[in-house]
Amino acid sequence: MNDLINKIISFRDERDWKQFHNPKDLAISLTLEASELLENFQWKSSDQAVDANFNDIQDELADVLIYSLMLAHDLGIDVKEAILHKLEKNAEKYPINKFKGTARKYTDVE
Amino acid sequence: MNDLINKIISFRDERDWKQFHNPKDLAISLTLEASELLENFQWKSSDQAVDANFNDIQDELADVLIYSLMLAHDLGIDVKEAILHKLEKNAEKYPINKFKGTARKYTDVE
Amino acid sequence: MNDLINKIISFRDERDWKQFHNPKDLAISLTLEASELLENFQWKSSDQAVDANFNDIQDELADVLIYSLMLAHDLGIDVKEAILHKLEKNAEKYPINKFKGTARKYTDVE
Amino acid sequence: MNDLINKIISFRDERDWKQFHNPKDLAISLTLEASELLENFQWKSSDQAVDANFNDIQDELADVLIYSLMLAHDLGIDVKEAILHKLEKNAEKYPINKFKGTARKYTDVE
Repeated sequence: MNDLINKIISFRDERDWKQFHNPKDLAISLTLEASELLENFQWKSSDQAVDANFNDIQDELADVLIYSLMLAHDLGIDVKEAILHKLEKNAEKYPINKFKGTARKYTDVE
Repeated sequence: MNDLINKIISFRDERDWKQFHNPKDLAISLTLEASELLENFQWKSSDQAVDANFNDIQDELADVLIYSLMLAHDLGIDVKEAILHKLEKNAEKYPINKFKGTARKYTDVE
Repeated sequence: MNDLINKIISFRDERDWKQFHNPKDLAISLTLEASELLENFQWKSSDQAVDANFNDIQDELADVLIYSLMLAHDLGIDVKEAILHKLEKNAEKYPINKFKGTARKYTDVE
Repeated sequence: MNDLINKIISFRDERDWKQFHNPKDLAISLTLEASELLENFQWKSSDQAVDANFNDIQDELADVLIYSLMLAHDLGIDVKEAILHKLEKNAEKYPINKFKGTARKYTDVE
């Protein structure tokens, strides 16, 4: 993971783009890339989309990850710890005995 | 990375949620989490937002990563290879000598 | 307004696109167009973006409105009534005496 | 339409919120509201979502329209003209004889 993050930051530093990359604009960029990923599914069933656009989906997902890792790096967030911490919070919010097999939101379950 | 992905998939399997997680709905979820991340920056400068909402930003970024890794897993995408491949494509699209220090899009540079 | 909605629906019917336009895909399309609008502000201050991209901003905002009016039409939603109804709800959620001059969320104000 | 826009702007002016509403943050807000609308369709078929969440869909669509009309107002954009102008551009981009009954993008059709 650290190796990947270093490659991403090198890519940016070689272009001297850090000056544009404040966290707010990185968060904007992340939503734009997530939308470009989603665009591959527009007007299609899930299976149709994956069949027709697999390579584009892979590339856009990579862009989402690149911006995510960049933003984490800039904010000093340890990606692994942040994910494990969030999984624990989600586990409390969605206890297995109440949410197994249901897509309801935690706000819908008393 | 693989260890993280396994933990994410275990979280899902314990709740039997795979049945809802077709790639199209995962891509939708990714845009929703990216928006929740961005919401922390609404009506604020970048610095104000990071000061006021650091923990929420970290948690939402973790959610973006969780859905990204889940979608990659379900589609059989190797995250590391996908990122390296995309960095190479981006390097061709944005050659250093033309894009150093500029935020222009590749379509704006002849 | 009704005249506008009729023109939008005619545009669609001439192309026989109603068959693709289920509400879920229209809601996806709305987020994609909102992102294309936002893309005009990426890496720029608000003023820089408006100066540089006014025509594109206008066009993307029109696309957001076109999809919004199409979705309202398909769901039998009266746009004017929906807006007035929501303004009333927002007025209850954000009473003037508590929220005048503050950007806080209603959840942050006791 | 003008009557609606006046009501929206009055709602804002009574709360003295214009100071926060630069176009960039309004464009961000528009994507956030579009995402909240889309959230009603997450993990559901289009029909299931409309059945289960009709009122919420109506309210979120109203929020999208409120922010769209506010942004148009602040930028001096005439909503009706912008929509008619964009429909004309779309009609050139998607001529009926090439796009009738197909969901392909204009970039996919020679």
